[in-house]
Amino acid sequence: MAPRVPRFLDMTWQEVAALPAGTVAVLPLGAVEQHGPHLPVSTDLVTASETAAAAVETVTASGEASVVLLEALAYTKSDEHAGFPGTVWLSWDTLMRVLVDVGRSLAASGIERLVLVNGHGGNSALGQVANRELRRRFGLRTFFAHVSTPRDQGGAPASGGEHGLGVHGGHGETSLMLHLRPELVHMELAERRVPEGLLAYEQIGFGKPVSFGWLSSDFGADGHVGDPTTATAEAGKEMFEHAVEQLARTLVEAARFTTPVDGAAGLVARDRT
Amino acid sequence: MAPRVPRFLDMTWQEVAALPAGTVAVLPLGAVEQHGPHLPVSTDLVTASETAAAAVETVTASGEASVVLLEALAYTKSDEHAGFPGTVWLSWDTLMRVLVDVGRSLAASGIERLVLVNGHGGNSALGQVANRELRRRFGLRTFFAHVSTPRDQGGAPASGGEHGLGVHGGHGETSLMLHLRPELVHMELAERRVPEGLLAYEQIGFGKPVSFGWLSSDFGADGHVGDPTTATAEAGKEMFEHAVEQLARTLVEAARFTTPVDGAAGLVARDRT
Amino acid sequence: MAPRVPRFLDMTWQEVAALPAGTVAVLPLGAVEQHGPHLPVSTDLVTASETAAAAVETVTASGEASVVLLEALAYTKSDEHAGFPGTVWLSWDTLMRVLVDVGRSLAASGIERLVLVNGHGGNSALGQVANRELRRRFGLRTFFAHVSTPRDQGGAPASGGEHGLGVHGGHGETSLMLHLRPELVHMELAERRVPEGLLAYEQIGFGKPVSFGWLSSDFGADGHVGDPTTATAEAGKEMFEHAVEQLARTLVEAARFTTPVDGAAGLVARDRT
Amino acid sequence: MAPRVPRFLDMTWQEVAALPAGTVAVLPLGAVEQHGPHLPVSTDLVTASETAAAAVETVTASGEASVVLLEALAYTKSDEHAGFPGTVWLSWDTLMRVLVDVGRSLAASGIERLVLVNGHGGNSALGQVANRELRRRFGLRTFFAHVSTPRDQGGAPASGGEHGLGVHGGHGETSLMLHLRPELVHMELAERRVPEGLLAYEQIGFGKPVSFGWLSSDFGADGHVGDPTTATAEAGKEMFEHAVEQLARTLVEAARFTTPVDGAAGLVARDRT
Amino acid sequence: MAPRVPRFLDMTWQEVAALPAGTVAVLPLGAVEQHGPHLPVSTDLVTASETAAAAVETVTASGEASVVLLEALAYTKSDEHAGFPGTVWLSWDTLMRVLVDVGRSLAASGIERLVLVNGHGGNSALGQVANRELRRRFGLRTFFAHVSTPRDQGGAPASGGEHGLGVHGGHGETSLMLHLRPELVHMELAERRVPEGLLAYEQIGFGKPVSFGWLSSDFGADGHVGDPTTATAEAGKEMFEHAVEQLARTLVEAARFTTPVDGAAGLVARDRT
Amino acid sequence: MAPRVPRFLDMTWQEVAALPAGTVAVLPLGAVEQHGPHLPVSTDLVTASETAAAAVETVTASGEASVVLLEALAYTKSDEHAGFPGTVWLSWDTLMRVLVDVGRSLAASGIERLVLVNGHGGNSALGQVANRELRRRFGLRTFFAHVSTPRDQGGAPASGGEHGLGVHGGHGETSLMLHLRPELVHMELAERRVPEGLLAYEQIGFGKPVSFGWLSSDFGADGHVGDPTTATAEAGKEMFEHAVEQLARTLVEAARFTTPVDGAAGLVARDRT
Repeated sequence: MAPRVPRFLDMTWQEVAALPAGTVAVLPLGAVEQHGPHLPVSTDLVTASETAAAAVETVTASGEASVVLLEALAYTKSDEHAGFPGTVWLSWDTLMRVLVDVGRSLAASGIERLVLVNGHGGNSALGQVANRELRRRFGLRTFFAHVSTPRDQGGAPASGGEHGLGVHGGHGETSLMLHLRPELVHMELAERRVPEGLLAYEQIGFGKPVSFGWLSSDFGADGHVGDPTTATAEAGKEMFEHAVEQLARTLVEAARFTTPVDGAAGLVARDRT
Repeated sequence: MAPRVPRFLDMTWQEVAALPAGTVAVLPLGAVEQHGPHLPVSTDLVTASETAAAAVETVTASGEASVVLLEALAYTKSDEHAGFPGTVWLSWDTLMRVLVDVGRSLAASGIERLVLVNGHGGNSALGQVANRELRRRFGLRTFFAHVSTPRDQGGAPASGGEHGLGVHGGHGETSLMLHLRPELVHMELAERRVPEGLLAYEQIGFGKPVSFGWLSSDFGADGHVGDPTTATAEAGKEMFEHAVEQLARTLVEAARFTTPVDGAAGLVARDRT
Repeated sequence: MAPRVPRFLDMTWQEVAALPAGTVAVLPLGAVEQHGPHLPVSTDLVTASETAAAAVETVTASGEASVVLLEALAYTKSDEHAGFPGTVWLSWDTLMRVLVDVGRSLAASGIERLVLVNGHGGNSALGQVANRELRRRFGLRTFFAHVSTPRDQGGAPASGGEHGLGVHGGHGETSLMLHLRPELVHMELAERRVPEGLLAYEQIGFGKPVSFGWLSSDFGADGHVGDPTTATAEAGKEMFEHAVEQLARTLVEAARFTTPVDGAAGLVARDRT
Repeated sequence: MAPRVPRFLDMTWQEVAALPAGTVAVLPLGAVEQHGPHLPVSTDLVTASETAAAAVETVTASGEASVVLLEALAYTKSDEHAGFPGTVWLSWDTLMRVLVDVGRSLAASGIERLVLVNGHGGNSALGQVANRELRRRFGLRTFFAHVSTPRDQGGAPASGGEHGLGVHGGHGETSLMLHLRPELVHMELAERRVPEGLLAYEQIGFGKPVSFGWLSSDFGADGHVGDPTTATAEAGKEMFEHAVEQLARTLVEAARFTTPVDGAAGLVARDRT
Repeated sequence: MAPRVPRFLDMTWQEVAALPAGTVAVLPLGAVEQHGPHLPVSTDLVTASETAAAAVETVTASGEASVVLLEALAYTKSDEHAGFPGTVWLSWDTLMRVLVDVGRSLAASGIERLVLVNGHGGNSALGQVANRELRRRFGLRTFFAHVSTPRDQGGAPASGGEHGLGVHGGHGETSLMLHLRPELVHMELAERRVPEGLLAYEQIGFGKPVSFGWLSSDFGADGHVGDPTTATAEAGKEMFEHAVEQLARTLVEAARFTTPVDGAAGLVARDRT
Repeated sequence: MAPRVPRFLDMTWQEVAALPAGTVAVLPLGAVEQHGPHLPVSTDLVTASETAAAAVETVTASGEASVVLLEALAYTKSDEHAGFPGTVWLSWDTLMRVLVDVGRSLAASGIERLVLVNGHGGNSALGQVANRELRRRFGLRTFFAHVSTPRDQGGAPASGGEHGLGVHGGHGETSLMLHLRPELVHMELAERRVPEGLLAYEQIGFGKPVSFGWLSSDFGADGHVGDPTTATAEAGKEMFEHAVEQLARTLVEAARFTTPVDGAAGLVARDRT
């Protein structure tokens, strides 16, 4: 009986070699970084890994596509939280090199399609850069999916009371963790930290046309930005199930995704470096 | 009489040193890359430079903020167009190093606020990475603005007939160039190249929740993706004036932008590397 | 009640900040690489993570030292297995950068002592380099421990029948996995692959005075080097318990380890770069 | 009617692809750096760009060779002026990477001959390194030309009163700018800053057999090294016309330049990396 | 008459090209670093170069193999002695790049076998990394030999009185230098510096299962670690002759060393990068 | 009695620390590269090392300055000879890192003045870059001297019959080697290889205003460029003695060289990175 969640790491090399053509590899991107006084530093790793595993299980059960789950990258680009104890961050340069090495290895393993499942907003931009780099250099079909689209990348506000400013450790992430790891959430330490001053700007801000370079220390000494006090396990369960459902759809689409010029032909004009 | 567009490059070093505290430096990011058979390879450099110059002039005239225009970066990250003659591209690594060196230099020149004005969608992700890097390492307040928000970053469709798929050399860019550099546009060579097959995906696509790593060669041999045949100078003029107006507002906001913890205090927790 | 295995990732940033001075952080180094037809690609990650967790639990229970377990690095330097499907490897350069970034982050988190627990022989040399780099640059007291000392680094032969040549996927690793993850071991595919020709050399060889640069493809198409056919779960259990006991002792020693010139004084002569 | 100055940036990618074999691409290297109290930070960019454009126009008009003008690199290696406001400098590493990326792109565009036209003495050495790197790696025929040969590279003294020590912002550059951009020159702030102490050395010095590593801050707080007070627009006009004439000759020579072993045969022994 | 020690540097390029297939190139790795008050900073360069030259001479005289001696790398990775005057050290990154460039060049010169002869313990780990890198990327058969196996890498204690702790400038190295360069040894300044406190640890220490990251400044202000006071020229002579004899044997073995899959076939699975 | 040639490598670290303030360190830059069929690959290393040693001896004997000789860098930037057996070359990147690491180490050793003595024309440009980098970053007074000024850097033609084209392995270098290492010169293989076609260019060429990127393979299969057939030991002796005399003067000047703003004050404006 095949496992419910087919894991790359559980396979022998010959099992990897025997994966069906077009199998979609799924790589969660977590983070180990401060999430305020109420959430563990693993928050983004937990949400990315759990969402990815559940979606891979869903798709495998449905038989709609061949998918395989990779071990998450735990340590990623958390430079906006540098200086807070508990943040273990890779520079942009280091993380790009990791992603390139992983992409090269997967391509050499016969993998042709890769979905990055990102739990940490701070990885989004670099992940997009990697997306293209792996396509160009190794011919991989690459996709970048968010556990939940962050507010500063066009996602919906997580909670009305946050005015769309709950970008880190707020209502959304806290709810998700109350659902996934309740024993690690310290609701008694949760406090509202919503930078309402940002509402004064029309052009610049989270989810607005112009982004700005921010550090969590720009917002206060606690480290989170948002309102965790309204979080509930129920809201988290709903978010999680929605995220899994969306990601499962994404994986199925990724398995059949194509462009007008496909495969080798599409790569003719490439300047491989 | 002060020039209408205060240019950093026209100043002596002592004039740079004497810029008012809080002056906003504006750095256009262009590109030199194929834009289909009908547009010059300078398209993104032209749109970014012209928009930035006009917005700097507007703000200077209004007296609402002190702004200064930097010379554009002409050559940037056009790896998605690698292999097409005429594309002169920097790798992600090279462009990041350029942006870091420029940011370091500006901070050493007393500049505290920097707005990147981006004309090339392929720079957006790396520009976001730089945004944060310059904030963390040099204390700069950084902002990343698009000439026009690209479709794959949440912008509105440029034209109904493109179904939101006109991401490169389509209705929008062609119209802008018909307004700004009509003598360089070859409308007689403009053809519709809209990858309508992408409409079959719900999750994955330009402006959809999940992005994908693409090369222009994935879409055809011509290089553009969109429908330039509907472009007009009038539409371009309207887009340009809107972009200038938006950017001028952004510059004024950037001059007064602040966060709950401001200045040096906000930088206490930083791990400068 | 404190958890049996204190995990860095389960903590909030303030809990990390509150760890007792002198706490020993434990970072397992795994690998994702081919291990022959009979073992999963995760073998080294499993053995390193399990050994580290059990030793941290032992020491915590004994109260002899304050220790905290970090999430393992799953993907490391498996360049000797490059080209086999299933091997996901980082270059020497990438892995060093990861280790430097992690070390910098831990030092900034107040951690002063770090034990690397290595499950993959191919990491040993670079790990030693990192050992010193983190000491010099960040002042960390660093230690490098093997799950089981590999033969090519002075360890005892894992099994008489292997003549000391069972360096990858042989009796030792297969036994450990039969104990730790029996469901992932395919003993029916295990075959003896002992390169007895190496016995002809006195100076050069695994565990001999002169090492040689090898790739697993130098030894055959299967990928393993050793004799897994003699492996048993019982032998694996004994090895594992021995490894845990040794590592627990190491952690206690690491907590009190000192040199003639200690702390800041010892760092006077450093050239921090 | 073809434009007087054929510009790479004005072309479509297909026009670039259609350039005649052997076309000489011309890349001006400027700088954005302090030039004393009397000259704008753009001085080297202005002189390089204007000279290159005029020479390209001359050659195009004469029909002696096919040439095409690239957009200048505005920001280059001005590390000797680091620390002065207004200096925006790239490290040696960054500039080399830019030149390599540009060279790779041009070669991929079908360009076979490249002339760097350098306006900033601080680029000369690295430009020579790039010259060879682009020849070896991409097969480009490369040439490095100075707007005016700097004194520390064997050029003639710009003015008798400077004793050959007017290397930055002195008589020569100031005269050129009085001709090219009189409105940006502040002659009322020009002061003589000639380091006559250097005349005491026979071996070491500008234009002497042994060069020395210098920063502009080694010579004073104003930033320039030379005597701008003698500068005139007339002298600048003469210098400029001479520079254009020389560069035009260079471009014609570059178009027909060959070595005993030409083209592909000459590249047989290469170790491409 | 052929020279007694065939030196690569004495040859013309055509002589290098004419070396017999299978010739073993020998590259000594020295160091320039503090060695306490009694030894010159060249100690490791002297011991590595002299041992290598004598072994090459021995093998050449015997006719057992074709060997050729390369000029030593004088400056290597002495970061553990950074901050002491007289230490000239390369970072891990720099030294690896040097070794890669040298390996690439040798492979391009037709060399297929390379033995690194290391005189400095601080190079051992990185040398092992290079060993594999050169095998994988350039197909070189690589070997890493120590002048005398250092204690922290499994070698025998150099002297009973040092308790195995004489890792730098102690009995062994001082004796070797009394034999090889007596005029450079200052025995009147030699003092015993044995960190006996390390004997309190079972797991951690020089030559013990767990290594630690150390700097020489961790052990005292003098810089050496060991007991040079017992050193004699006689002991040095014996050590030297033993080292030469061992290395000569190694070179002969290296010339005929093979693995089950040899040559090109063994390289099939490589992922050349 | 002090040695005739004070060598850094012969000293203990405390002797290095005790060098007089203002001591000039001398670092020869050699090369290991093809020099045609008649000269050994060590040619540039021999000429640089011998010249430097003799000049250091001269100055020491005269007592005019305190100087100290460093071990040469044998392997440097010989990329123009890549692909010829016997050429062992470092990339520009690697050599710069070596020079930076060496400069940092020397500055940390208390050295304030450094003269690079270059035997290989291919190092000249990068050496100039290093000159400035070491001044800026470490405050070193740096100087770059040629054994004999190469023709393409303004030196006089080595021999009339070469028309100034004897840039590699011609009359000059062959004569020097006939003087310094006659046993390694194969005059019977020396042939005239003068690329007289270059005389057709006015602007471009060795020692002309415009340099070009060349590889030795551009000039023929033998590797040298010049006419060694006219070389004599007498001419070599004269050249050598002249070079030693010139370098000795340079060292004396370097010991007292200063600029208007000296020492720490001159470094005020630096942006140390």
